[in-house]
Amino acid sequence: MNTIPGSHADLLERPLYGHLATTRPDGQPQVNPMWYSYDGEFIYFTNTTTRQKYRNVQAERRVAISVNDPEQPYRYLEVRGEVERIDPDTDGAFFLSLAKRYGMTLEGPPADAAERVVYVLRPQSVSYQ
Amino acid sequence: MNTIPGSHADLLERPLYGHLATTRPDGQPQVNPMWYSYDGEFIYFTNTTTRQKYRNVQAERRVAISVNDPEQPYRYLEVRGEVERIDPDTDGAFFLSLAKRYGMTLEGPPADAAERVVYVLRPQSVSYQ
Repeated sequence: MNTIPGSHADLLERPLYGHLATTRPDGQPQVNPMWYSYDGEFIYFTNTTTRQKYRNVQAERRVAISVNDPEQPYRYLEVRGEVERIDPDTDGAFFLSLAKRYGMTLEGPPADAAERVVYVLRPQSVSYQ
Repeated sequence: MNTIPGSHADLLERPLYGHLATTRPDGQPQVNPMWYSYDGEFIYFTNTTTRQKYRNVQAERRVAISVNDPEQPYRYLEVRGEVERIDPDTDGAFFLSLAKRYGMTLEGPPADAAERVVYVLRPQSVSYQ
């Protein structure tokens, strides 16, 4: 069962920027653009354990992402769901695969690899236009 | 006192799409692209009273918006703040001014003008890159 509409799956398949909304400890939303990848089931993000976003996601696993189409910016997909796992990425392998997807060629793992994690987001509901 | 950094004010001044994060009644964030305008103090959005977003904002005035630069998508501005007022726009005047800002020429007020409102967001804190 996939909640992503076929008409808008391209917005997850293309290397666009997803505006990820999380919830701060005081209950206020926080949102900023992120790289991501999509395997047809989960959406994956890279982050580090030193970020406020990491503290947000640890405390509140329910998040949302909004991606719009650069060529038709009113065309968008919102995915709401839950971060089902936070996996370590201490060798930076996921970070490097994302960087490659976004057209960056890096020589080796990032300096902050030891703190790198992967958010594994399971989509649960969507809105789109 | 303005919290918007001069280096990133162009992202509010240009007619880009802002990904507005609000909080649903069950506490989950919701986010989608929106038109907006900025007068140097407040950020303004159009919405209708029939939308889930309206119910969200009525119950939780604290919201956040993320805008990135289409020419350099890693360059972004996040603004967190509070919807200080929800003004009626029952003649659709604000909607029409926004539509014009975004390059749409409309003949008259929208069909849903009776339900149109303006969110008046006071910026309180930012993050940017």
